[in-house]
Amino acid sequence: MTKDKEKIEWYHDFIDRDYTPRDDDLVALFYFDKADSVSVDDLIGRLASESSIGTWTTLETLDDEIFKKRARAFWNTNNHVKISYPLELWELDNVPQLMSGIAGNIFGMKAVRNLRLIDTTLPVDYVNGSKGPHMGVDAIKRIFKKDVGPITSCVPKPKIGMTTDQHVQVAIDVWSGGIDAIKDDENLTSQVWNRFEDRVTKMAKARDKVQNETGEIKDAFINVTAETHEMERRVKLLHDNGFRYFMVDVVTTGFAAVQTLRNLAGDLDMAIHAHRAMHATFTKHYTHGISMYMLAKLMRLIGVDQIHIGTVVGKLDSPKQDVLDMRDMLLETEVKEHPDRNLYQNWGKIKGTLPVASGGLHPGVLPEVMKVYGTTNMALQVGGGIHGHPNGSHDGAKATVQALEAVRDGITLEEKAESHKELRQALEKWGYIQPI
Amino acid sequence: MTKDKEKIEWYHDFIDRDYTPRDDDLVALFYFDKADSVSVDDLIGRLASESSIGTWTTLETLDDEIFKKRARAFWNTNNHVKISYPLELWELDNVPQLMSGIAGNIFGMKAVRNLRLIDTTLPVDYVNGSKGPHMGVDAIKRIFKKDVGPITSCVPKPKIGMTTDQHVQVAIDVWSGGIDAIKDDENLTSQVWNRFEDRVTKMAKARDKVQNETGEIKDAFINVTAETHEMERRVKLLHDNGFRYFMVDVVTTGFAAVQTLRNLAGDLDMAIHAHRAMHATFTKHYTHGISMYMLAKLMRLIGVDQIHIGTVVGKLDSPKQDVLDMRDMLLETEVKEHPDRNLYQNWGKIKGTLPVASGGLHPGVLPEVMKVYGTTNMALQVGGGIHGHPNGSHDGAKATVQALEAVRDGITLEEKAESHKELRQALEKWGYIQPI
Repeated sequence: MTKDKEKIEWYHDFIDRDYTPRDDDLVALFYFDKADSVSVDDLIGRLASESSIGTWTTLETLDDEIFKKRARAFWNTNNHVKISYPLELWELDNVPQLMSGIAGNIFGMKAVRNLRLIDTTLPVDYVNGSKGPHMGVDAIKRIFKKDVGPITSCVPKPKIGMTTDQHVQVAIDVWSGGIDAIKDDENLTSQVWNRFEDRVTKMAKARDKVQNETGEIKDAFINVTAETHEMERRVKLLHDNGFRYFMVDVVTTGFAAVQTLRNLAGDLDMAIHAHRAMHATFTKHYTHGISMYMLAKLMRLIGVDQIHIGTVVGKLDSPKQDVLDMRDMLLETEVKEHPDRNLYQNWGKIKGTLPVASGGLHPGVLPEVMKVYGTTNMALQVGGGIHGHPNGSHDGAKATVQALEAVRDGITLEEKAESHKELRQALEKWGYIQPI
Repeated sequence: MTKDKEKIEWYHDFIDRDYTPRDDDLVALFYFDKADSVSVDDLIGRLASESSIGTWTTLETLDDEIFKKRARAFWNTNNHVKISYPLELWELDNVPQLMSGIAGNIFGMKAVRNLRLIDTTLPVDYVNGSKGPHMGVDAIKRIFKKDVGPITSCVPKPKIGMTTDQHVQVAIDVWSGGIDAIKDDENLTSQVWNRFEDRVTKMAKARDKVQNETGEIKDAFINVTAETHEMERRVKLLHDNGFRYFMVDVVTTGFAAVQTLRNLAGDLDMAIHAHRAMHATFTKHYTHGISMYMLAKLMRLIGVDQIHIGTVVGKLDSPKQDVLDMRDMLLETEVKEHPDRNLYQNWGKIKGTLPVASGGLHPGVLPEVMKVYGTTNMALQVGGGIHGHPNGSHDGAKATVQALEAVRDGITLEEKAESHKELRQALEKWGYIQPI
């Protein structure tokens, strides 16, 4: 027996095709593309080994009790493999640790050319160890006092660069045009020309004024993205100024911070708007990285109340099936398996998270977006499609609301536009084009 | 003029090939592979627009003051583009915000097939707004009282699954064999069979015993990876138990939490060992995502004291040139530009970060690793290559130290092995093979 053979055999101990996962096992589904230097079994054994108890060589320190804790590759076909993990490998309510295991070193192994974490079935015992959203879908009623969604929001554009006063003026125009919430863009935090504190106090004053004038409830998704304690300070400032929401870039801040903010949101009875900037560095290619579906699942688990998942029709990657799968995963209590796309999931006590459609939207595409989403349990984010209106942001907001009214009332945009000039002007500028 | 043309022209306003970046501009270098539907100029204009002030349509809200804040694509050739950003777009000491800008939405645009953030020149005014490592290279002297490195560390293996008592026994074997530090693996945090508190107190007791017996300074890189406040609690517990180091999975916890931990490390006079689990989900392919070089740069900027950058010879992806480039970037005060590989960087007041070689190492490959690194300002992490020793972990540790002594004394491993049976046994088991 050569030394190489001895090594390989150890990896094969992590393959068990007779194994049926227990109800409390985690099960991860991967797509893989192996390096030429290894066999399929060499690779899937390595995946199970390196993401659980293993290393690259035989060990003197391994005993039966430890070996029981191993992961098992129990099914594979067509470059897909399912790996099961005993629950006791994991620490509850610690998403960074989960990802260090199932999405850690294995992606950097020379033995894999491509590897994609598609989905993970989290056992109910694991799921119930997390908090999930504080409000989730209930934010529509609890915060905006509306019977049905969508929640509408708008980013003042240009996305950054406006002074605080310019920013607030756009907010007033948009709020008073009928939009529920003003959203910061992902790269607006606290810059010299628009300081966070200044924005918060001025936005609060403007919000109160518009609420008084319109009788409608208004809020804002103000971006707190920063170092963790600074984020906590910013969230508290928002709370002290009467906002019920805050926004955070969940990928660039990271899992540990999002968990921390979720705890704070519960304490302060606030909701989290999750922006996903940077996700496409690892979600874009279907053969490598981590799926957007998996990222969205982790965010529901941690407990953001709403998260961007794509528009289908906008400027960003978002195939229709992906959006529908994520919508279901975010909203349903029990999610069915679809081979190669997603695994079964029972969400236990965890509330649903609202999906957010965003990116390149304008009034002309809203009927299509609402049709694809097939639910009003959602948030709809329009930026350039409001401010690019020929008559400015206020009329852009009105055009957006008019388009949604048309959808709600089951009439076409053309019909609605006959009696609503703001919508008509929007359609004249953009028609029904889909920006790329 | 069609509406489509109007839209495209707006993106072209973000291209300025006559522009010379100011000393206080940030400059990012990207590799790109465009979608068929757009021209190169369409794409690079979009990159500059979407990562700064822009959006997908013309806007009524744009004025000259805002337009001055735009990013500019000022150079491109062979699928590479450089984009400059005015300093005032950024908030100092806020790495999540930086990444939300230069590594955010642009990766998800339909207009790009592939996009890679290779490097960024951070102006000195920006760099000096961050903390950088509290100890960095000085940890060799300050913590271990050694004149020269490498710092040696070892992960008890199997990587997870041992009880606390088993784990601590391995630690004693390894420390007493001459290794400086015991490192947790990335997926060991606080599991039922090895609780964090239990591990810390027992490891502290064992450390004191071995220090007394050997007269050598011993420490541990114990993994605090969790939600942020829980991590802070764990770091304080380590501090209270006399450890000078803690370890954290910097990608799975995220930039916001790492910044928080860096602040705490300064307060407690501790050093941070950074594990990079999950990095390869976005660093693996040279055509997409973010380079490991860029990630390591951000970690020096935030201030981890040591970070894994690969072994060249081990089981993980790590081409030699990449490792050498990262070594220089982590250790030097002024880093030279290498076209297509990295940009110029002046590190201002920021200390150097120690590179860590890890993954698939054993005594037989250490001379090659030390030769490639070309410096003793580093940390060397050996796991399976110690515990897989035919005579167990203690002798594995001795064999590792003997191999390093041979390198230091300029003799071959064969010569050293003549008088050192532990090294001889290691060479008999593994020889000089490079695991894959």
